[in-house]
Amino acid sequence: MTKSEALELLSEKIEAMTALQMAGSLINWDAATLGVPKKSLPARSASMGWLEGEHFRYFISADTLEAIETLEACETELSEHEQLMVRELGLEYRKLKAVPEEEVEAFGALVAEAQPVWETAREKRDFEMIQPYYEKILIYQRKLCDWYGYENHPYNALLNDYERGANVEMLDGFFTQLRKSIVPLLKKIIEKNNQPAEIKGNFSVEKQKELTAWLVKMVGYDLSRGKIGEVEHPFCTTITRNDVRITTKYHEDNVLSSIYSIIHECGHAIYEQNMAAELDKYYLGDCASMGIHESQSRLYENMIGRSRPFAAQILPELRKSFDFFADWNEDMLYRAINVAKPSLIRIEADELTYALHVMVRYELEKALISGEIEVADLPKLWADKYEELIGVRPSNLAEGVLQDVHWSAGLFGYFPTYAVGTAYGVQLLNTMKKTVDIDKAILNNDLSPITAWLTENVHKHGKMLTPAEILEKATGEPFNAKYYVEYLAEKFTDLYL
Amino acid sequence: MTKSEALELLSEKIEAMTALQMAGSLINWDAATLGVPKKSLPARSASMGWLEGEHFRYFISADTLEAIETLEACETELSEHEQLMVRELGLEYRKLKAVPEEEVEAFGALVAEAQPVWETAREKRDFEMIQPYYEKILIYQRKLCDWYGYENHPYNALLNDYERGANVEMLDGFFTQLRKSIVPLLKKIIEKNNQPAEIKGNFSVEKQKELTAWLVKMVGYDLSRGKIGEVEHPFCTTITRNDVRITTKYHEDNVLSSIYSIIHECGHAIYEQNMAAELDKYYLGDCASMGIHESQSRLYENMIGRSRPFAAQILPELRKSFDFFADWNEDMLYRAINVAKPSLIRIEADELTYALHVMVRYELEKALISGEIEVADLPKLWADKYEELIGVRPSNLAEGVLQDVHWSAGLFGYFPTYAVGTAYGVQLLNTMKKTVDIDKAILNNDLSPITAWLTENVHKHGKMLTPAEILEKATGEPFNAKYYVEYLAEKFTDLYL
Repeated sequence: MTKSEALELLSEKIEAMTALQMAGSLINWDAATLGVPKKSLPARSASMGWLEGEHFRYFISADTLEAIETLEACETELSEHEQLMVRELGLEYRKLKAVPEEEVEAFGALVAEAQPVWETAREKRDFEMIQPYYEKILIYQRKLCDWYGYENHPYNALLNDYERGANVEMLDGFFTQLRKSIVPLLKKIIEKNNQPAEIKGNFSVEKQKELTAWLVKMVGYDLSRGKIGEVEHPFCTTITRNDVRITTKYHEDNVLSSIYSIIHECGHAIYEQNMAAELDKYYLGDCASMGIHESQSRLYENMIGRSRPFAAQILPELRKSFDFFADWNEDMLYRAINVAKPSLIRIEADELTYALHVMVRYELEKALISGEIEVADLPKLWADKYEELIGVRPSNLAEGVLQDVHWSAGLFGYFPTYAVGTAYGVQLLNTMKKTVDIDKAILNNDLSPITAWLTENVHKHGKMLTPAEILEKATGEPFNAKYYVEYLAEKFTDLYL
Repeated sequence: MTKSEALELLSEKIEAMTALQMAGSLINWDAATLGVPKKSLPARSASMGWLEGEHFRYFISADTLEAIETLEACETELSEHEQLMVRELGLEYRKLKAVPEEEVEAFGALVAEAQPVWETAREKRDFEMIQPYYEKILIYQRKLCDWYGYENHPYNALLNDYERGANVEMLDGFFTQLRKSIVPLLKKIIEKNNQPAEIKGNFSVEKQKELTAWLVKMVGYDLSRGKIGEVEHPFCTTITRNDVRITTKYHEDNVLSSIYSIIHECGHAIYEQNMAAELDKYYLGDCASMGIHESQSRLYENMIGRSRPFAAQILPELRKSFDFFADWNEDMLYRAINVAKPSLIRIEADELTYALHVMVRYELEKALISGEIEVADLPKLWADKYEELIGVRPSNLAEGVLQDVHWSAGLFGYFPTYAVGTAYGVQLLNTMKKTVDIDKAILNNDLSPITAWLTENVHKHGKMLTPAEILEKATGEPFNAKYYVEYLAEKFTDLYL
């Protein structure tokens, strides 16, 4: 195979995978926004399965490897984009090939089976029901560590899969700092018992939708290159580079829910919308990592959306739409959108405690993978850790160990990206504010200086840089958790102590 | 290749084509219901093109032909479904193979280019603009006749492509009967000048949507196995056998438009929903022909939806929603939904004159294909034929020869299916009414006896029977246009003379 034949072949593969991925994304969007007729599920799953399988078959074929190896052998003759394309495809190819095909299939069937069992187990608060599935899934995850390979701790193999370069050493350091600073801070806040007024009332969905329109404009999500849908569990999905869609859910009794889910998904979408267009054909038009993706959504959601100037800007909008806010002032709102109190459910946790919820899962996963603990130990250890770190103990398994879908879906090593991503976000913000007047941008209802900085330093690079490279290039130093810890300490001390 | 290898291979091909087709249908549904961001069009088209190409590549490969030939050689050992599967795939394969690949591609590019040109030409009423495209498209259509092969008239090759078994002899007979009976009838109706009251007012879209809910239930479209979308140009699309979607468009000033587009699409959807489920895996879960599909939509739309008992049933619903109908009675409504007057635009034509609009196009296409006339003759001949058959002459090209998208899209031979389908519908109805009390079903707001008869005689067979076989089996005789002509003459004589 010549160099140009190899490039041509990979380009064809990428074209095929792009088309299959677009189809898959649209099928999922359609299901989430419109629902699937129950009787249509089997045929739909069969076709979806074929499309996913085809994606895999297209990529994992002998000629792909030959092309990758051909290009690796003449790396210096390639453009930078081509080199990185070969690096990405090579990593992906070898990762997929590392796992025996029959194991992939068996595991796919296992998690498909586990999914409804987890739902029922959670409903019935019955751990024994899901336990054998968790055990089988864990066995596979442990094998996965060996197949992928690792240095030092086996969990590193899984961490690295979702967050390139992440490892136990880095995360232990990160969570140790958090524990040292945030756990005592939370205790002090609880003792002080100085809680903000609660936002509770009846908020018309129609009015919430108007607020959504204001929000996406304010935040800078380009609606002419996307759409907004309503779903049960909000997400962001990329159909094409110029069709990046966000979703939300409206609750009549909770106006903050849709506001912050919208800002969060806008953060994801703005990242996707601003990747350099030329990356797509090199298979580089994708996020650097899950953590970097989360850094963008959390930066917009928390560091901007829960800031004091943002409270000042959104208050008149809220007043316009909802009588509830008639007597509210900026300070009350700023406090109300920054609750800080112990809670049991991760996805409802506030900014201060969120990473502690992740820490519980991180420590349990690490110990499960290394064999220090077993699945049967989870319910008690989970409750103990919540009590130790957050100061609350679940009264049942649905608000305890059975609350997350991840383990039954076979996702081990994923949770830490949520916390690390948030910390990336603060580190980026910390550098950004040296050259961008963030408060002024917010007070102008125009975040474009912020988005421009993020586009230049994060978005446009897509997958060309690793998470570590992005941080190093943008902030001049490697990942450093202290910015996040200091940010939380400062913000919540100021608010509550 | 052994028999079982061949069956296995075709089954895999069908699985792949089903998945690719589902993806394509969903992508189109998404575009029609939600719109496509303009900047997303190139990437979307590229992926759509790949998926369509893949469908073709999957099917047209040497192993498919080998499997078809293997199974043709042992036909007697196959089940009925397998035999018919081999027949269908064989026909399809050879048809596709009959056209040189480079010609298919060039033609695809030609019609893609012609599409926006036609839009502009229609807008500017400029025939010369589109003429060179029509000419090139016509050259291709003439070649297509040779590639497909035909007996007697070359146009038969194209007719047969959309309507298996249709030919010039059959259609000449059909349209001759129509001309003899309907043209003078229309003239008499015009002379009598006894037009019904007009339905014109402001009809809230919200109320129209409530009426839609009533209609789909009444007509018997199973909404639990489908969805309703809003689009610019209504259509019906099958995602899976149990997810058949319809669409409509609401006009504030025209309540009849959404009513009849809904009933029409329900007719298509009920056909798709009631094909026997086991047909799909044999590639037989599809319509027998475009004409048979149209027979179902027109039967529901016209023969049921514009009947006197239907007027009786829908009037109270209209009264509930719209003050406009406060003083209306059943007879007024029955007449108002059965306008019969000359018009220029096919898609807005009434039941009586619709087939005359089709006849204009049929006669022109036939003469174009045989070379009796040339593209340049079209504007004048079009206007002459409208004047001769319908008694009106277009005052400009947008309401004349440039009104339809078909020719610029390369669809020659398609128009006749609209008229023939309607005639099939009447012939079926004529037999159905011997055993089903149609009026009673309508007056009960329960069309299930009608749907049951159609399912038994038409729907469930999918592609297992040809159009001719369906008619023969259901009505005991071959296609006979007299039922349609008599039905129109009787209905409109009764209404207007």
